[in-house]
Amino acid sequence: MNRIELSQPTRAEGSKMKIVIVGCVAGGASAAARARRLDASAEIIAFEKGEHPSFANCGLPYYVGGVIEARKKLLVAPIDMLRQRHRLDVRPGHEVTSIDTANKTVRVRDLEQNREFTEHYDKLILSPGATPIRPDIPGINSPRVLSLRDLADADRMHAAATADAKRAVIVGAGFIGVEVAENLVHRGIHVTVLQQDAQILSPWDPEMITPVDDGMRDKGIEVLLNETAIAIQETDAGVSVETRSGRQINADFVVACIGVSPDNRLAVKAGLRCAERGGIQVNAHMQTSDPDVYAVGDAVEVVDFISNSPTQIPLAGPANRQGRIAADHIFGRASRYRGTQGTAVVGVFDTTAAMTGLSEKSLRRLGRPYEKIYLHPMNHAGYYPGAQQMTLKLLFAPDDGRILGAQAVGKGGVEKRIDVIATAIQAGMTVEDLEEAELCYAPQYGHAKDAVNMAGFIASNVLRGDHPIVHVNEIPAPSDHAWIDVRTVKEFEAGHIPHATNIPIEGLPERLQELSRDRPLFVYCRVGQRGYMATRFLNQHGFQARNLSGGYLTYRLFEKAREIPKPLI
Amino acid sequence: MNRIELSQPTRAEGSKMKIVIVGCVAGGASAAARARRLDASAEIIAFEKGEHPSFANCGLPYYVGGVIEARKKLLVAPIDMLRQRHRLDVRPGHEVTSIDTANKTVRVRDLEQNREFTEHYDKLILSPGATPIRPDIPGINSPRVLSLRDLADADRMHAAATADAKRAVIVGAGFIGVEVAENLVHRGIHVTVLQQDAQILSPWDPEMITPVDDGMRDKGIEVLLNETAIAIQETDAGVSVETRSGRQINADFVVACIGVSPDNRLAVKAGLRCAERGGIQVNAHMQTSDPDVYAVGDAVEVVDFISNSPTQIPLAGPANRQGRIAADHIFGRASRYRGTQGTAVVGVFDTTAAMTGLSEKSLRRLGRPYEKIYLHPMNHAGYYPGAQQMTLKLLFAPDDGRILGAQAVGKGGVEKRIDVIATAIQAGMTVEDLEEAELCYAPQYGHAKDAVNMAGFIASNVLRGDHPIVHVNEIPAPSDHAWIDVRTVKEFEAGHIPHATNIPIEGLPERLQELSRDRPLFVYCRVGQRGYMATRFLNQHGFQARNLSGGYLTYRLFEKAREIPKPLI
Repeated sequence: MNRIELSQPTRAEGSKMKIVIVGCVAGGASAAARARRLDASAEIIAFEKGEHPSFANCGLPYYVGGVIEARKKLLVAPIDMLRQRHRLDVRPGHEVTSIDTANKTVRVRDLEQNREFTEHYDKLILSPGATPIRPDIPGINSPRVLSLRDLADADRMHAAATADAKRAVIVGAGFIGVEVAENLVHRGIHVTVLQQDAQILSPWDPEMITPVDDGMRDKGIEVLLNETAIAIQETDAGVSVETRSGRQINADFVVACIGVSPDNRLAVKAGLRCAERGGIQVNAHMQTSDPDVYAVGDAVEVVDFISNSPTQIPLAGPANRQGRIAADHIFGRASRYRGTQGTAVVGVFDTTAAMTGLSEKSLRRLGRPYEKIYLHPMNHAGYYPGAQQMTLKLLFAPDDGRILGAQAVGKGGVEKRIDVIATAIQAGMTVEDLEEAELCYAPQYGHAKDAVNMAGFIASNVLRGDHPIVHVNEIPAPSDHAWIDVRTVKEFEAGHIPHATNIPIEGLPERLQELSRDRPLFVYCRVGQRGYMATRFLNQHGFQARNLSGGYLTYRLFEKAREIPKPLI
Repeated sequence: MNRIELSQPTRAEGSKMKIVIVGCVAGGASAAARARRLDASAEIIAFEKGEHPSFANCGLPYYVGGVIEARKKLLVAPIDMLRQRHRLDVRPGHEVTSIDTANKTVRVRDLEQNREFTEHYDKLILSPGATPIRPDIPGINSPRVLSLRDLADADRMHAAATADAKRAVIVGAGFIGVEVAENLVHRGIHVTVLQQDAQILSPWDPEMITPVDDGMRDKGIEVLLNETAIAIQETDAGVSVETRSGRQINADFVVACIGVSPDNRLAVKAGLRCAERGGIQVNAHMQTSDPDVYAVGDAVEVVDFISNSPTQIPLAGPANRQGRIAADHIFGRASRYRGTQGTAVVGVFDTTAAMTGLSEKSLRRLGRPYEKIYLHPMNHAGYYPGAQQMTLKLLFAPDDGRILGAQAVGKGGVEKRIDVIATAIQAGMTVEDLEEAELCYAPQYGHAKDAVNMAGFIASNVLRGDHPIVHVNEIPAPSDHAWIDVRTVKEFEAGHIPHATNIPIEGLPERLQELSRDRPLFVYCRVGQRGYMATRFLNQHGFQARNLSGGYLTYRLFEKAREIPKPLI
């Protein structure tokens, strides 16, 4: 290494490249900044329909709730900085209305001056984002029905939330729905959430998200599952929402958060190839069907990193990476987008849920073989004050142990474990690699056997056949099994699986004669550890035992998610 | 996948295996529990010299300081549980005094009954740990000189700290030294720390640990570097410590924390192969030179995962993993220890320092080529309340970008980033892989471009030659460079590198005529971002610019660590 010798500076190209960017928030802003760094002399024009470029869209709910007090904090890259420091020609209040790919021009409307003009490009980057889906129901266009996509929306919702409002109805319990719900509670508003699905936050598996659902109800939020709005009527005092099941709910305002769809209008009009679900189709360099037109962010169809199938996942991190990759490719770099893993986190009150990779639902939908395990580790050493229990679910390939996905929910250290597993998935690691992860340990931060190691230990034992497990949502349909609860008598009496027999683990060796060797024994404890030991012991004595992965705590999650099959209840 | 079919249960072996374990804390306790799960009928005897098996040794400083109030919390696996639930024959108060490898027996002393006996083994696992090093200086054996290795030590220190003590001297500022220092401050004691090195916490590079040093001084701890005790004298009121530089420090008690050495006494006596530095030598299955004797934990020499060279790193996580691997191998499993990465974390007051892989010091010592970058990212989105800046240093191979090590220091989210990079190192990832890491993002948890991504972006730019950098501790020795400070006038006036010229980045294009194309320009800003943009701009205009990695904040760290070379000052 010779750090002293200066590398050859890149000279400015002879001809000046002209890049036009449509939409200057996450993906577009990243592309613009990267392009400037790669080429000091390129002409870079970024048109942004809204009032502000590069605002903090993920912060909008927290501004509504007053967690972020000053509106100006949301302007993460003020226009002066983009213009002076990055020397970008950023033009807010400008809407690109059409693209002429043959002549390489865009038609632009200056919204303030109300005039139109044509701008030439050498390379065009589309970053139009996604549009909130508004259900086609009566009353949806009332000014009392709000959504939350940009600063103007946030201003309206902020005004509504601080104007002595008493009640709000949120339609949709996705990321924005639950974040807005929390923030309206911060404003003292009574909130009802209508969710079409049987669970909130549908990227997660139903049992894994129940602690977030519980946390919302604990704060007084009315969460109505399998329910949606079918009509909204303005009243003297506000609105009345009619639901599918026939409820009438009065509120000061409604927030529609039923999801987003890729804003492909410009692309479709220009004849660029789009997917059935609407996403603009791009290659790994983010090029559309016209190689001089790139598209990035929520508007594009991406490839799922694990299943390799096309999908639509609107996330800020991938949008930023894609913007960078488009700029790289324009300047001759071979950067490739490796696909989206779907790593996500949401915090609602004091509960955090995080995930990466494929969910169990997705794996089933894809028909892909998988095994799964549950555990309930502490975020750090239990003897250090403030330790909190989380639930972790790990999905992996039953043949080679490759990690397919993970979900976690709890109060502390949740997203840290998912970040580690996200990195493991990126590397193509197996559950056996997680056994060997060497992570930070001091009692206030983790555990000498970290939650990630524990997940690796359990899954590897399952993979190697050392730990036969069973799941409550997969009980063999006609099954002549018996449930053995190896917890203490006191734990058993406080609640147990129906028809279970209580044999505390300490007394198991003396009570083997009570058990049958001819039928499956489903063993469980509180979290799965004693159950594992008992299962090992029983199988080494000729029984056919399986351990309920994650134990009674996992059973309770399924119960809350109403996912316990009938024969078990 | 057919989860319904029960896997064949493992039957108990005909002959009963007898395992003897010496030392039943981290590694030994893990080995015992794993052995029991692998074989329900094996005879497993664990001798523990101390009063309690499996106590929380990493919690001891926090018990001294009252952070952990109840002593019983330190007994993480109470003996009754180990006996009844795990069916382990655990015998505290029993010291193994010799091994007869030819006859496969150990000689044991029952410390309470004061009698000796011989115990046979099929397989022996040594987990004797490490012994605190006590410097050979006058007065070291005074009862007022304490150390902290086991519960009995903790009891003594707890008594000393709560007995109206006013002053304490700590000799050694390693992990235990700084943790004890913090905890004595919690007890209202004035603490002086003597550290032989020029920095505290020597696994870290000097500039990276200065924020922890600062934090200790802010809390009133007197940290004396390049200083140690040469004599200790008892006085009427306590002790008087004489230091190398001639200081006399009075205190109520002294804590000796100058490090540990592998407790190899039994192994040496038994003729088992040990390394020069003392560690018991083992293969990847944790077998010593006698294949029926295993050794695990702080007593063994390990292989450094990155450099593949032998080393001695006492850490709880690796000890636990090694115990598991030894038990696995005894029962015919091929588990291998992959080596130690040296992932570590320490929290002192509100500052966290974490690291993984090789330090810059180690890389230099090993003569291994490396490049490095610094950055100062926020732990989460800056616009969300409570965002805190950390410093992150990434070390990587200059040819292929393979990650060699990382260190971070800050107030929040520090160990999370090191855990992610530790996983990346385990996977053999490069800095370009970090660019593509897809991590959890919501404004209260991270950033759409996470600190880890940013580190990847910067390092990859350096690797690809897009970002020529310079480091203050590596200025070319006769160098005709000029320093250009591209921050604002106000920032510059608040403090800058000597002889630097201030050209705020916004005005750079207009002031190119002030700069020479014939000599290196070393550019810097506050954290490195504007400096990077300016460097790109200058090099694209024919200058020979390099950016100071990490900017003025990194310069300040080196300055505090007294690591700025003379010509620069």
